[in-house]
Amino acid sequence: MAKITKVSPLAPAAFPTLPVIDGVQLASIAAGVRYQGRTDVMLAVLAPGTSIAGVFTRSATRSAPVLDCQAKIGGASDGPAAILVNSGNSNAFTGHYGQTSVAEVTQAVADVTGVPVGRVFTSSTGVIGEPMKHERIVAKLGDLNAALSPDALEDAARAIMTTDTFAKGASRTVGIDGKMVKIAGIAKGSGMIAPDMATMLVYIFTDAHVEQGALQAMLSAMTDRTFNCITVDSDTSTSDTLLLCATGSSGVDATGNAEFAAALEEVMLDLAQQVVRDGEGATKFVEIRVTGAVSDTDAKVHGLAIANSPLVKTAIAGEDPNWGRVVMAIGKSGAAADRDLLSISFGDILVAEKGWVSPGYREEDAAAYMKGQELVIGVDLGLGEGKSTVWTCDLTHGYIEINADYRS
Amino acid sequence: MAKITKVSPLAPAAFPTLPVIDGVQLASIAAGVRYQGRTDVMLAVLAPGTSIAGVFTRSATRSAPVLDCQAKIGGASDGPAAILVNSGNSNAFTGHYGQTSVAEVTQAVADVTGVPVGRVFTSSTGVIGEPMKHERIVAKLGDLNAALSPDALEDAARAIMTTDTFAKGASRTVGIDGKMVKIAGIAKGSGMIAPDMATMLVYIFTDAHVEQGALQAMLSAMTDRTFNCITVDSDTSTSDTLLLCATGSSGVDATGNAEFAAALEEVMLDLAQQVVRDGEGATKFVEIRVTGAVSDTDAKVHGLAIANSPLVKTAIAGEDPNWGRVVMAIGKSGAAADRDLLSISFGDILVAEKGWVSPGYREEDAAAYMKGQELVIGVDLGLGEGKSTVWTCDLTHGYIEINADYRS
Repeated sequence: MAKITKVSPLAPAAFPTLPVIDGVQLASIAAGVRYQGRTDVMLAVLAPGTSIAGVFTRSATRSAPVLDCQAKIGGASDGPAAILVNSGNSNAFTGHYGQTSVAEVTQAVADVTGVPVGRVFTSSTGVIGEPMKHERIVAKLGDLNAALSPDALEDAARAIMTTDTFAKGASRTVGIDGKMVKIAGIAKGSGMIAPDMATMLVYIFTDAHVEQGALQAMLSAMTDRTFNCITVDSDTSTSDTLLLCATGSSGVDATGNAEFAAALEEVMLDLAQQVVRDGEGATKFVEIRVTGAVSDTDAKVHGLAIANSPLVKTAIAGEDPNWGRVVMAIGKSGAAADRDLLSISFGDILVAEKGWVSPGYREEDAAAYMKGQELVIGVDLGLGEGKSTVWTCDLTHGYIEINADYRS
Repeated sequence: MAKITKVSPLAPAAFPTLPVIDGVQLASIAAGVRYQGRTDVMLAVLAPGTSIAGVFTRSATRSAPVLDCQAKIGGASDGPAAILVNSGNSNAFTGHYGQTSVAEVTQAVADVTGVPVGRVFTSSTGVIGEPMKHERIVAKLGDLNAALSPDALEDAARAIMTTDTFAKGASRTVGIDGKMVKIAGIAKGSGMIAPDMATMLVYIFTDAHVEQGALQAMLSAMTDRTFNCITVDSDTSTSDTLLLCATGSSGVDATGNAEFAAALEEVMLDLAQQVVRDGEGATKFVEIRVTGAVSDTDAKVHGLAIANSPLVKTAIAGEDPNWGRVVMAIGKSGAAADRDLLSISFGDILVAEKGWVSPGYREEDAAAYMKGQELVIGVDLGLGEGKSTVWTCDLTHGYIEINADYRS
């Protein structure tokens, strides 16, 4: 397996200092599922009464752990809960063996932690199609349980990495009714080596109380504006999982609180953008702002068509202000567009308007802008009030190197 | 502009010998629209009564010539007809100027050839967003008209190339009622340099008579099984155009004739596959055969999801039998799939079945197979009778070089 030794040039300067979330205990360990010399399993145990919401890959070939999590979300939430995540093997496309493996691991976690098995959630990321050596995980559960501590989120972020080039974390604190409520999350994703997948795993914890139905509704809506607005290469993993856990240990009920919702969405967007910043081979972080669409849905369809276009992505890699390819992507997206009402900008530079190049446009200005590492492409369709912003990275030789040049 | 000097390794050994199609006169010329030292305009003049059918890009931002052709298809077909094609400039995203340009060129062709302007079809391929110097084309129309000859299809194939690495032609001959009917076509597409587009242009001529409505129905249905089953990078040009012209000069009416239809579809498939063989940076020609889907439509959705997946395409480039990525692509396609009924093969090697790796699978066999230049990936969904075959190429450093490393 190829080793990615360079940290993405788009990575944040350092892993952020994350607050301790009351009601969450964490531990990580090296179980040798596949990797050697590093941690590869994390366990989180959550206080009784923790509400848990989840969103998952829509893949028709999703993995056994995803199916198990989906079946459990929305169940009784009075008992404690646990999340166990391993890297190195995704337990995806492993036939009936996959389900057996999940059943054995979740039961073992339940036995060790005292959490009801219906409240034990697992995720697996790594190689697909190989039976998971879950006995290696089970053998470490006693040690993991003994090592649980309230301040171990950064270690957990490292344990779930596969070929990520940096660990990803984010947090916000909100004052509600004179008390401070904390939100902290970790994520992995976007670095991958054959035959690993670009699996995105995200775990967000808060000490606020939020009723489960409200938590799920909030998570689903915000996912559409954050994690579902990022794309590296348009491919979707069979294992993508996002769990949001509200322990309630702060004693503050944040159900329906707008400031809490805003802070949560900030954490989600921060983590989502970090995933793009670790896109394979990425050298540019690109924000695509679509306005003037017939609807928000249409705006997002256009935005993702631009973000996923290999021609747009290679032009960005080549620092080429190739607005013609943006026009092409809008045209093929399937959403409403009128060529002669379209305007396109790169940063503050108006490139095209009214179906043609802008009269004041100078190629050298746009070419200079494209040399930056953080780019904004603006598209106004001139049709209505719909808008959406999506984030992506460029398509470079690095992507080909990571995904083609090495054998698993 | 970067020069592609190497011919695709997937190119046919030579341009085929094409038969003369009665009722078609052709000429090519160097007009200097953009390129120097090569032909860049072709003119075809078609006998009175020629039926013309067309299919075009569905892009919402399609070019002025495409819009003009679409408006003309299906009109009166008693007079002669003409097709004028230029390379070097696509006359796309050129605002109101684009329409004016098309109007001036088509009128000039009508004046020179005596073809009614409603029967003059034009296509343009090349740079987008720059006003076309159509006066350079108009200035050459007299010479073009004077040079018309019945045996100039190969020259025409060369005049319409942009960054294609080889000229593309195909033909078939069919016996109907004791007479021979001929079909010959040319195509360009898939090589491109910023800011050119992967525009696909195809012109097919036959000396059979086919009533226009029947010709259009046949062309549309066959396009769905040929040109709409190929993909290089999922991007769609604003200028894609396919015109099918039945001159009737053989005196044979092929309307409803099954052998004629089969021969025509062979020509279309041959040309479509040549376009894939000239995909930017392509080193492998890949056929994806999907069977057992709920419907033919679902089968094609799965096939194109696999063919367009950057992860699948890079795995093929890396000669990696990475069936996990095929599973991923099926899962994300949106069409019906049951993970545990799926089987996948590479050539004759059964790789995965019943939701898991096949018991007899040996990685070294598949790895050896992937070293070939012509690959077949088979997917059986185990759900129904739906099937579809699509064709694509791999995604290599060459693609990035062509599309990112050079500025226009």
